[in-house]
Parts: sequence; structure tokens; C-alpha cells
Amino acid sequence: MIKAGIVGGTGYTGVELLRILSAHPGVKVEAITSRSEDGIPVADMFPSLRGHLDLAFSVPDIETLSKCDVVFFATPHGVAMNMTPELLARGVKVIDLGADFRIKDVPLWEQWYNHTHTCPDLVEKAVYGLPEVNRAAIREAQLIGCAGCYPTAAQLGFLPLLEKQLVDTRRLIADCKSGVSGAGRGASVGTLLCEASESVKAYGVPGHRHLPEIRQGLTAMAGRPVGLTFVPHLMPMIRGIHTTLYSVLRDPVDPGLQELFEERFANEPFVDVMPAGSCPETRSVKGSNFCRISVHRPQEDDTVVVLAVIDNLVKGAAGQAIQVMNIMFERPETEGLQQVALMP
Amino acid sequence: MIKAGIVGGTGYTGVELLRILSAHPGVKVEAITSRSEDGIPVADMFPSLRGHLDLAFSVPDIETLSKCDVVFFATPHGVAMNMTPELLARGVKVIDLGADFRIKDVPLWEQWYNHTHTCPDLVEKAVYGLPEVNRAAIREAQLIGCAGCYPTAAQLGFLPLLEKQLVDTRRLIADCKSGVSGAGRGASVGTLLCEASESVKAYGVPGHRHLPEIRQGLTAMAGRPVGLTFVPHLMPMIRGIHTTLYSVLRDPVDPGLQELFEERFANEPFVDVMPAGSCPETRSVKGSNFCRISVHRPQEDDTVVVLAVIDNLVKGAAGQAIQVMNIMFERPETEGLQQVALMP
Amino acid sequence: MIKAGIVGGTGYTGVELLRILSAHPGVKVEAITSRSEDGIPVADMFPSLRGHLDLAFSVPDIETLSKCDVVFFATPHGVAMNMTPELLARGVKVIDLGADFRIKDVPLWEQWYNHTHTCPDLVEKAVYGLPEVNRAAIREAQLIGCAGCYPTAAQLGFLPLLEKQLVDTRRLIADCKSGVSGAGRGASVGTLLCEASESVKAYGVPGHRHLPEIRQGLTAMAGRPVGLTFVPHLMPMIRGIHTTLYSVLRDPVDPGLQELFEERFANEPFVDVMPAGSCPETRSVKGSNFCRISVHRPQEDDTVVVLAVIDNLVKGAAGQAIQVMNIMFERPETEGLQQVALMP
Amino acid sequence: MIKAGIVGGTGYTGVELLRILSAHPGVKVEAITSRSEDGIPVADMFPSLRGHLDLAFSVPDIETLSKCDVVFFATPHGVAMNMTPELLARGVKVIDLGADFRIKDVPLWEQWYNHTHTCPDLVEKAVYGLPEVNRAAIREAQLIGCAGCYPTAAQLGFLPLLEKQLVDTRRLIADCKSGVSGAGRGASVGTLLCEASESVKAYGVPGHRHLPEIRQGLTAMAGRPVGLTFVPHLMPMIRGIHTTLYSVLRDPVDPGLQELFEERFANEPFVDVMPAGSCPETRSVKGSNFCRISVHRPQEDDTVVVLAVIDNLVKGAAGQAIQVMNIMFERPETEGLQQVALMP
Repeated sequence: MIKAGIVGGTGYTGVELLRILSAHPGVKVEAITSRSEDGIPVADMFPSLRGHLDLAFSVPDIETLSKCDVVFFATPHGVAMNMTPELLARGVKVIDLGADFRIKDVPLWEQWYNHTHTCPDLVEKAVYGLPEVNRAAIREAQLIGCAGCYPTAAQLGFLPLLEKQLVDTRRLIADCKSGVSGAGRGASVGTLLCEASESVKAYGVPGHRHLPEIRQGLTAMAGRPVGLTFVPHLMPMIRGIHTTLYSVLRDPVDPGLQELFEERFANEPFVDVMPAGSCPETRSVKGSNFCRISVHRPQEDDTVVVLAVIDNLVKGAAGQAIQVMNIMFERPETEGLQQVALMP
Repeated sequence: MIKAGIVGGTGYTGVELLRILSAHPGVKVEAITSRSEDGIPVADMFPSLRGHLDLAFSVPDIETLSKCDVVFFATPHGVAMNMTPELLARGVKVIDLGADFRIKDVPLWEQWYNHTHTCPDLVEKAVYGLPEVNRAAIREAQLIGCAGCYPTAAQLGFLPLLEKQLVDTRRLIADCKSGVSGAGRGASVGTLLCEASESVKAYGVPGHRHLPEIRQGLTAMAGRPVGLTFVPHLMPMIRGIHTTLYSVLRDPVDPGLQELFEERFANEPFVDVMPAGSCPETRSVKGSNFCRISVHRPQEDDTVVVLAVIDNLVKGAAGQAIQVMNIMFERPETEGLQQVALMP
Repeated sequence: MIKAGIVGGTGYTGVELLRILSAHPGVKVEAITSRSEDGIPVADMFPSLRGHLDLAFSVPDIETLSKCDVVFFATPHGVAMNMTPELLARGVKVIDLGADFRIKDVPLWEQWYNHTHTCPDLVEKAVYGLPEVNRAAIREAQLIGCAGCYPTAAQLGFLPLLEKQLVDTRRLIADCKSGVSGAGRGASVGTLLCEASESVKAYGVPGHRHLPEIRQGLTAMAGRPVGLTFVPHLMPMIRGIHTTLYSVLRDPVDPGLQELFEERFANEPFVDVMPAGSCPETRSVKGSNFCRISVHRPQEDDTVVVLAVIDNLVKGAAGQAIQVMNIMFERPETEGLQQVALMP
Repeated sequence: MIKAGIVGGTGYTGVELLRILSAHPGVKVEAITSRSEDGIPVADMFPSLRGHLDLAFSVPDIETLSKCDVVFFATPHGVAMNMTPELLARGVKVIDLGADFRIKDVPLWEQWYNHTHTCPDLVEKAVYGLPEVNRAAIREAQLIGCAGCYPTAAQLGFLPLLEKQLVDTRRLIADCKSGVSGAGRGASVGTLLCEASESVKAYGVPGHRHLPEIRQGLTAMAGRPVGLTFVPHLMPMIRGIHTTLYSVLRDPVDPGLQELFEERFANEPFVDVMPAGSCPETRSVKGSNFCRISVHRPQEDDTVVVLAVIDNLVKGAAGQAIQVMNIMFERPETEGLQQVALMP
């Protein structure tokens, strides 16, 4: 059994890790930390876990955590970097669901996150947690910076096009729509039901922190710098990201887009290329680790439209982290991640 | 492996049976029928099942179904009664999620459902599918009439009070709130998003078909006829039933309600009595087979208020049917039913 | 033109006053206060008001407010009582949408609100703002304690039954369902979209602050103390209250309930008795000052079920306050309040 | 008083016309037709209108309608074209909210709508109902083909850029998000609450009927053919359209986009250019005739992002039709259209 610890268990990503791990046959959650909830049973805060998990929050503590085989950080940026060096030194693997180890260019990270990085050397060693792109490196890694939610959907959607050099990389567009859970469980006026339901809006248009992360990934795929316009939108729903990606074919002759996508993801257990002409719904992955994708060329024009949906809390966070853990610990990659989406 | 068939697979109850059974380690779904969708892969209609189930709809057919060990009917009333005699004759167990075998008083059933019953003799043999009330009979049964969604929540909530003769049975009140999925997947104006979201309304106040079913169950518990006012309400959400039950203590001395409830359900794997003072949320059971209950005596007055929540598609339908199946086939009662509620 | 001031303009009740008053032909809003937003244009905080209202928030100030003819307090309890004595002394009429002047029994108020009342003498002079019950007193009043949201719906629904002494007053039940806007615009985890949507729960079952207010009103109608069980529930929607009221007829002979209700409210401009057999939807009053009511006697039994719906922010708050203002200033009672509900 | 008739009163556009017209000081609704609801009071079908409108549905009839000054068609395509010639001949002005008179290229219309046009000569005479583009022509018109919902938002957003020849017209992108009411009030599985809430999806990607309409409008603004990719998405909410428009500046020197937009719409009563850096929310126009727009140039790159929101049932349908009517009948353009958006 893999002994797992979770730092930051009171947010949506933390409770989603618990939902999945409590049913994972190869994992035992040994510790879940929250400074403010020390001693409180987890199921008191999240009644959905009553009957499934008998564990209380504890104060984050290196001694306790270092008895784990792996520690998940479900924390805001700036937290994981403080405990990670010590955990790694003690032989504990670290999977950060936050942003501390995603961006390789440390000054760029510091600029976007307005924070000084305390272990830039570890950034270099960290592996970016997106199995469809770098499964081999994940297998060998001690430290993972898991891909963000928008970046997961956007990168998976652009992947086949960029790898094959099929589109003009100067002007890629990612029009992304996310449910409100992406904003976390903190009390704020903007995510109240009365503010966020029955409405749609864009936000972060001048610049969102996922922009440099997506650009870094797309640049690596394309092998050259890419120009990207990324516009996130808030949707009146709890879970789900829908990404609509626009790019222009370099050659107007159809390169067989449907086959290209099907082949690229044929062996990916969690990427489902939908039949030609389909439009994936976010609810088809609600609670599931799947990313469903379809590719279109409207009016036979030279603009390619890729649609990709994920559950932001699963493939966009907790599920992906567990998929990464399965790979790191040489467990079956899909173990504990076979939940069928909740429909309706 | 139990070989299972499903009649009526295109509704919400049918797809929920598939969601749960496709992950049940002891069951193989052999057939799923739909006259209108014959030959269509199930996952084409329900993309949430892509990658989980490789099965196509077929026309309902006795030959095919009689090769199953058990057949679930996820159909409107009036369907199961037509095929059940033949299936039983061939040794197939039948679990009807519809209303054909719930009401023991056949003329009463015919009056409320405005339908002639074609096999009244089987009604007598059928066992009412509510394990917390009659598990032993279920174990021996060949034919089950599963409890309805409102009736499950209302009966579980009143159960300890009525068994112990603690309340005045002349004027019980069940104020029930249901998500829209209870109305099914048929196209109708009243359940359009634009009609049913951002609104609450009562319906069926003069008389709803679940009234005689609940009254039958409460009468059996109390050992005497009960008076019941049942008012269902439509909630602007997909899943969940919240039942608020009112009754008046016969003796104003507090009988220890919290302990009473905890003891009554101590060995029930799917009934969770919440701590004193709690109010269960429907989302705490979203996608789960649990019923969560709390009991209150506001202002120390003699009116008892019981709050009970279920997921109408799980404990109120598909999950309960599978729990019943587990009992009938001597499988562990919770097998395949351990899903944690999806939160948020 | 009536010169109006609003204290506490950043909450939902405040912005709803502005929505209605900005289109009221007989009123000019002179001042709207918010300590934290001093100098900020109201339309910067509420873009829905752009193009409709050219006014900035200012610090609450007696000098400014005393130039008004009427001041509305859209504030939490404990605020209005501090400024009201001075405003009244200067001849300004005060309409408090909060709870400071609703309860006549000051010690009872202090117990439920856990707050010392600073002007108990004014409580006695204050008139309870529910026009259908005491229009004549409102006409003469200088100070109004507007009825709360739940209390408005519950009192209007019970009114005809209690006035006519038709029901047993020992065990009245008000099962109430409210949209989330009733909880206000403050940042809190419990009213986040991710917490409050797709779920239903009861709250405040042991005792909610509207209980003594409703009981006071029902007692006055009945002419004797009443026993009341009041259970509020949170609904996954923005606006609307649905009240389901249960009481038992003293005489089983039908007293002509439909006619009774129609006659009682025949001259009420904002109470609509629906046709026999109807169930009002909350959306039928969304954005409107109407209360729609229907009365039922399920199964011809002796339990009467009254259904009453209001928009908690209009008839349950801002609209009612403006209706009261119209009466106090001898304007047509419906002036500025003729908005049709937004459907769908 | 303008005497108005409405053909097709049972859909969302019809009831929205009634909501606005019933409070319009210069209009009297003389007739509202529905073949299926003949004789039924409108308020029986739409209780939100109880107390506001005393009118019953009648069978569509030329004699009755020809007594009106103006007839609104709130009907699917193919209906208005049948009655319009006779109405015009009798001197009645016609405002079609459907698609019959929007597209000037009749064969193109016939291809997209798969319908033979019965009065192609009238298409030529019809004026496109988008006041911000052709107010003068509307003033003289007898027949209006009102702009569709998506086309209104997309055209207003692109208008300043195209008129000034600032962007590359070969690859314009309109990523549009609509509430479910845009799909109408017909019973269909896809728009059930259980199917359309808590989910987002694209649809009509290969080709949506609003594509040729938008392209026609943009081509006229630009003075040359434009290339357009239009991807509509369904949002889990009732009302509102959010359009995110992408285009590339021909000259990388910033042309002063904010000022350009502010100047272009300075005299438009229903277009609100938001302050620089803003992102409009659809709820800021819920129930209102405003279109709110903001313009961005993310990361100072050469891609321009325009955000435009409308209420699809008001500025996208009924409100715009009434704005057009006000212009045609030389009433103040904003008369009856000053409703403040319902917030929250």
C-alpha cells in the first residue's frame, strides 16, 4: 500500500483527492493537514465522506509527512516550495497540484505570481505532470508540478496539431470556459451563487497566470515559440472546463484531422477522441478523469476548431495527480480512476 | 458473475443502473433493451459511458432476457407486469423499479394509476424493495417491487417513530422536495431548464401516486392506519430528495430521539444518522446510495421534525435496486455501491 | 418628488431599492451610503445600474440624510436603531428593512438577536410594515419596521384562516423554502455557488430569528397565542420564497376556502389568489411585488395546505418598503411597483 | 396609441413582447394569436402576467390583425412570409422577429433554412432591424426583419473595427455563449434542466443558421467579403448571450481602441461601452435592452478581443423589435425600454 499524505485538505482539490483515494485499492491516506481545522474529523467538514474515511485534520508537520511515500500539495502557490526540499531529502515523493513547480523559467514565474521562489534549483528537477506529454519522465520523477486545469485541456487539444507542425503557431487562440469550482472554496463575493449563477463573463483577459504555463507547453510541442491569446470565462456551474481552440492550417489541404487525433491518443487511457462531427459536453466527464476531444474544420475553411472537455477537479487536478502517482509507483495507470461520469 | 438484463435503458434510471453495474465486480450486464434505439451503442446515447461499457440497445425479447439471472425494469408503470410472469416462469428474478408491484391493494393501485393490472396474483408474491424494512423477505424473493423515491425517504425518516408508537399517527406530514430528474428524461415543457430552474413550486397537492405507497408503508410500521398529508415540490436542481417530516409526540416527555434513531439504524450500511443538531444536505449523497437523516424537536415543543435526504436516482432507484439484488444473490450488501458522493 | 435616502446600499436589498426607485416617477434618491465605498459611483459596483442612476456612495451622515423626506435602512439589525431617533427628531420618516423595529416585545428581541436595544421606546411607536394587515396604521406612521421575507409570505398565507378562527392554532407549521439571496451579499463559504447550488437543506431548525416575528403576527391575527413550527430551507436559486403552510380545520365541514381567500384579498393590489387547484411558482413573481397564493385541502381531509410565493427581495424587502412609502406619502399604492415578473 | 398584434404568443419571445408592451405607455396590444390556445387567457399560460394583461389568445386571422398598426411575428421561420404580403397591402407595418426577412440573398436563405421563400420580392424591400447600423432606413420601413440574437451581439462588437478597416477581415472569430432560452419553449430532451444544466457544450460547429446572417452584416460594414468562424455554445442558464470576438489588427500600432468604441456608440441609447479593462457580465443586462461591450488587446499583442453581452430575449429579440417599432412610429426610441437589469 502506498502511504499518502495531503497538505491542504479543506479546499475542493483536497476533498476530491480524498474522494478518489478513499476508494483506491493501492493507497492508504495517512495524514491530511489543515492548520485551522486541527483535530476535526474530515467527515465533519465534508459529510459526503461520512462512512468512507475515518481521519482527522492535523497540523502540517514534517515528521508525520515524512513517514508517507508520497505527499500531495493541494495548496495555493508558495506553500509547496517551503516543505518540498525537506520531504525530498527524506525520500518522500512530492506531487504539487499548485503552481510552484510548473514553470521552468523562474523569473517568469516570479513575475506572474508576484512571489520569490525559494527553491529554484528544484524547479529544474521537477517534472511537469501531464502524462500524455511526458509519461516517461514522470515514471522517474521524485517531484511533480502537476499541470493546471486550463493548461491540461488546452495542451491536450493542441497537441496533435503542434506536434505535426500543421498550424500557424503565431496566433493560437484558447477560448476557455470553467465552472466556478476552479476558483476554490474560499469565501468571496464573486463566487457566491447569487453573483455567479445565471451569468457568464470573461475575466483575466489582460493576462491570466495559466497563460505562461500553456505557452510553455505549446512551445515545447511546436519546437518554436508560439503566440497565444487565452481568454478564460466563468460558467454558471460547479464543475467542468470546456476549451474551444482556434488555429489556422498552414496548408489548406485537409491533413486527415480526425485520424490524426484518433491515432495520437489511441493508447491514452484517459483521452477520448469523439466521433467526427461530435461536440463533447462537460457533463460527460463530471466526476471522471477523462478528457473528451473533438476536432472540426467548419465550412471546410482553413480554421481548425478543437473542442476539449475535462472535469477541472479530476483530470484538471486530483485525478491527474493520482494518475501521475500511479505512474510513479508503477501501479496500473487507471487504478482507482475508473469512475463513470455522473449523468445526469 | 450475475448476468443482468435491463429493460428500458434510455431513461435516467436506466443509465444510472449502467453507471453502477458497469463497475460492480459481481455483475455482467448482458442485455439492455430499447425498442426505439435497437442496435445503437449505449455509449452513443450516453457519452459518459464511453470507455466503460461496450453494449448496444436491443429490442426487448424474452429469449434474450431469460438467459439472465436477474432483469431490472426501469420502465414506466404498466410495462413490467407484461413480461414478469414469463420471466419468473423461466427462473429469472425480477426487480421492478417502476410501480407495478409496490401496492398490495390492487384496486387501489388501479385507481391511482388508472390502469388494469394484468397479474394481480404476482402482486401478492412480490416483496417490497426497501431493505431497511424487510431485508429477510427480500433475501427469499423472486420478484421485487422497489420502493419509489419519495417513499424511500419518507418511510426511512418516519420508521423509528412509528415502530415505537411515539407519535400521533392521525396527522403525519411529509413535505418533500425533489430534483427534476425525478420527472424522467421525456421531453416536456415543464422540465425544460427555462421552466424549472430558478423556481420552486409544489405539484400534485390534491393527490400524488406516491401517497398510497407511503401510506401503505407507514401503516405497516405503525400497525394501524395513518393519516398522511404529502406535498411534493419541484426543486431547481438535477438530483436529490429532501424530505421534511412533521409529527406530534404522543407523550411530551422526550423519548431520547437521537439515540432512538442511532440505534434503529446502527446496522444499516446505507442509513447515516447525523449528529444531533445537524441538517443533511442533498449534495452530501449526490451519486451515493446513502440516506442521511437527522431528527429535531424545535423549541423543545412536541412536534418532531425529521430531515432525510437521498439521491433519488441512487437510493431512490438504481442503487436501491442493486442493494436489493446483492441481498437476493447473497453478495455483500454494499458491493458496487460504495461510491462517495460528488462534492462539490 | 419624495426625497429618499438609503443607508446600506451595497447589499442585495439596497441595490433592489435602487432598481425600483430609479424608475419610480415620484421619488428622487438623494443619498446612498456606504462607509467602505465612499465616493465610488454606485454603477461601478452594480453595472446593471449604468445608464439608470448617476449617484455615488457617501459616508452615512445625519446632516445629509436629514434633508431627505424618508430614509430606508437596508442594514443588518442594530444599525437603524442608532440613527433613527435623530432622523425622526428632524422630521424624517424612517423605513427600516432590517429587524430593529419588528418585534414589540423588546426583551424577546434582545434574546433572539443577542443585542441590547438602544431605543425601546421607539419600538412601541413603530408600525409593522405589512400593508395587508395594517394599512391604516402605516398611513399615519413616522417609523416603520418592515416585515421580514419569510414572515411576509407566512403571515399572508395564514391570514384568512386565522382571522376567521378556522384552524387549530396550537400546531401551525410553516415549511419555507428560500433562494440564496436571502442570505445577503456577504462573502461566506455556505452561499458560494459550489456549496449552495445543486443541493437543498434545512437550516435554523432549532430556532430562526423569524420565528418570534411570525408568531407575533399570527398571534395578533388569531387573537390568541399560537404554536408554530417553522423550518426554513435553502434552495439552489437566487430569488424567491415558497411557503407551504399546514394547519388543521377545527370543523371538518369545508368553510369555502377558495372563496374565503379570494374575498379577503379582493382589494389587495399585490396579493393574487390563484384559481382553485393551482400551485404558484416562485418564478411567477421574480422581480415583482406580487404575492401569489393558493389554498388546498388534499384528499378532502381536514388538513389545509396553503402555498404562498413572493420574491424575497421585492415583496419580501425592497418592494414592500416602497409600497409602505407610497402609503405613508399618500401616493398611489402601486406607483413604481408594476414590474411584470421576468419569465423565463 | 399604437395598436399592436402579436402572432405566435406562446414562445419565450412572445411572452417577452407582452412583458414589455404591457407596460409601454404608447402601445395597446389588440391581439395575440395561437392556433392551439384559442380562447385561453394569456395569463393562464403565463401566470407572471396575471394582473398585468387581460387578453386571450385567438386564432391568427388577417381581419383582426389588419386592424392593428403593427404586427410582430414571434414565430419560427416560414410563418411570417405567409401573412406579410396581405398585411402590408392593408397598410399594417410588420416586424418579423424570425428569420424570413433577414438574408438578402434569397437562394442562400433557402439553402440554410431548407425552405422555399414565398415572397422574395419583399426580402428586397425589408429593412434589417439593427438600429445601430441602419436607423434611418428603419424609420422609413414598412417591413423589418429583426436581427437575430447572436448576430446582434456579434455585429455590434465588430462594428467599430470593421467600419474603420482596422482588422484583417479574412479570419474573424466569434465564440458565442448563449443561455438556453435561445432554443425556445418547445419540449425537447436537449434543453431539459437535467440535460442542459451543470454542463457546457458547443453545437452547430459545422454551420449554424446565424452564420450567413452575421457574415452578411460584417461584409456590409467592412465593404468587402469577410471570413468568419462562428462557434455557438450552450450555457447552463436561462437568459443571456456573451460574445467573445477575435480579430487581428492590420497595423500593430494601437489605434486607440477604447476611444474608438466610446465614440462610435456615444449616441446609442442601448449600447454601453464599459471602462477600459472591464469584462461585462451577462447578468448586467438580464431583462434589459442594453448591450454592454468592452474591448481588449491582451498582452499588447496584435489580437483584439471584444466582449459583448446582451439579453437574448430583449436586445436579441423582443426589446430590439420594440426599439425598432419606436423608431418606425416616431416615438422616443427608449420608450417602454428603460427596465433596469434584474440583479442579482
